[in-house]
Amino acid sequence: MNPKKIKKIITKFIKEKVSGANADGIVIGISGGIDSAVVAKLCADALGKDKVLGLIMPTEVTPENDVSDAVNFAESHGIEYKIINITTILKSFLDEIKENGRESKTASGNLMARVRMCLLYYHANCSNRLVAGTGNKSEILCGYFTKYGDGGCDLLPIGDLYKTQVRELAKYLEIPGAITEKVPSAGFWHGQSDEEELGISYKILDKILIKLIDKKQEIPGIFRELKIEKELAQRVEKLVKESAHKRHTPGICRIEI
Amino acid sequence: MNPKKIKKIITKFIKEKVSGANADGIVIGISGGIDSAVVAKLCADALGKDKVLGLIMPTEVTPENDVSDAVNFAESHGIEYKIINITTILKSFLDEIKENGRESKTASGNLMARVRMCLLYYHANCSNRLVAGTGNKSEILCGYFTKYGDGGCDLLPIGDLYKTQVRELAKYLEIPGAITEKVPSAGFWHGQSDEEELGISYKILDKILIKLIDKKQEIPGIFRELKIEKELAQRVEKLVKESAHKRHTPGICRIEI
Repeated sequence: MNPKKIKKIITKFIKEKVSGANADGIVIGISGGIDSAVVAKLCADALGKDKVLGLIMPTEVTPENDVSDAVNFAESHGIEYKIINITTILKSFLDEIKENGRESKTASGNLMARVRMCLLYYHANCSNRLVAGTGNKSEILCGYFTKYGDGGCDLLPIGDLYKTQVRELAKYLEIPGAITEKVPSAGFWHGQSDEEELGISYKILDKILIKLIDKKQEIPGIFRELKIEKELAQRVEKLVKESAHKRHTPGICRIEI
Repeated sequence: MNPKKIKKIITKFIKEKVSGANADGIVIGISGGIDSAVVAKLCADALGKDKVLGLIMPTEVTPENDVSDAVNFAESHGIEYKIINITTILKSFLDEIKENGRESKTASGNLMARVRMCLLYYHANCSNRLVAGTGNKSEILCGYFTKYGDGGCDLLPIGDLYKTQVRELAKYLEIPGAITEKVPSAGFWHGQSDEEELGISYKILDKILIKLIDKKQEIPGIFRELKIEKELAQRVEKLVKESAHKRHTPGICRIEI
C-alpha cells in the first residue's frame, strides 16, 4: 500500500463531503485508539485543525490512559476538544428503563455507543458540522460496530481500509506509539478486546476478508490457501452475512400494486 | 388504493423481516399519532399482539392527550406498553453539554428523537426484537425526520406509503378518530405542525412528490398541471435533493489504487 497516495485520496474525500454539504467542519469522537486518531488527523490535514472538534467521551470503565492519550493527541495537533464523561447520562437512561434482570452486556455497550452518537450530532447540529465516523473496513464487514451508534455518522474516511492498513497509515501519519500499540477495544467493559471477542486476530481476519470480499473466493480455497481451520473462515463468512442489515438502510416495504 | 391488499403486503413483509432476523418480535415507539398507530396495528396483526412492545416516550412539551391516546390505543389493542418520560434523560444530556448560547431548536428536537431511538434499541437488544420505524414516504422523501433518530430503525413498514395513503389505510384499520384527526407534528416543541414547518399541506405535497419521484416529471409540467406556484414545486424538489444523505448509508471513501 502507498500511504502517501491514500492520504491524498482521503483528505480530498473529506474536503468534498464537507463542502458538498455546505458544512463548516467536522465533529469526531476521539477515544484514544488508533482509528479515531487517524481520522481526526486526516480531517485536520484536509480542512485545517480549527475546523475539527473532538469529543472525548469516557465512561467509568474507560481506562484512564485512553483519556490522557486522547487529550495529548488533540493538544499536540492543535485540535479543539471537549471531555464529556457519559456516566451520568447512562445512569439517567438506566434509571428510567428499570429493566431489572433483563439487562444485557450488549444492550449496555450499544447504549454507550448511541449516547456518544447523540452527543456528536448535538454538537454537529449546533455548529453546522458533519460527524466523521471512525469505522474501518474490517469492523464494517464483520458488523463489529453499533448500528446507529458508532455506525451513525455522515462520512467514513477509513471505511475502505482494513485494520491492518489503518495501522500502516497511522505509522505514516506519525500517530504516537501510545495510541497505535494499544490493544484494540470497543471499550464497553473492563478488559474488552476486539480480537478476543471476534475470536481472531486482525491479521488473519483481514486476510480472510480480502479473499472473501475483494477476491470473491469460496471458503474451501480460502482456508486451504491461508492454512487455517475451515471453521474460522466459515465463522467470518457468517459474521459478514448476519451483519448485512447494519450496512444497509432499513428495509422499506415496497407496495407495487 | 386497495387497503386490504396493502395490509396483506405489509403484514407479510413484517413477518418475513422478523423471522429472517430470528427475532422474537417488535419494539415500536407509540406517539399518539397516526403513523405509529398504523404501524403498531400492522405489527400486532402480522405477529400477534403479544409480540409487540410499545414505548410511549413523552417529554414536557408533549400534549397530555398524546399520551392518553397512545395508552388507550395500546390497551384497546392488547399491546404491551411502557411509558418512559424522557425529560430527565434530556436534562442529563444538556447538563453535560453546557453549550450555553449555542443551543438550537433543531439540535434539541433531534436529540429527543435520538434518545427515543436509544431507548427503543435498548429494549430491542434486551428481548431480541427488531425496531419498527414509523416513517412514511412523504417524510422520508422530504427528509422530514431525524437521521439516526426516528430514522434509526430496522424496518419501515409504511415507508412506501404517502401520508395521504396512510390516512386511508388508518381508516380501513379502524384507528380511532382521536388519533387520525390530530394535526401531524414531530412534537419537538409546543404547537409544532408538520404542514406549517414544511410550508405545505400533505395533500399538495404528496401530489407533487408523486409527479416528481414516481412519474419522474420535470418542474414546469408539475406546477402547471397542479396549478400551483412554481416556487412550491421547486422547494419540494430542493427538500428531496438536500435530504438525500438521510436516505443513504454514510459515504465511504473508496480507495482504488
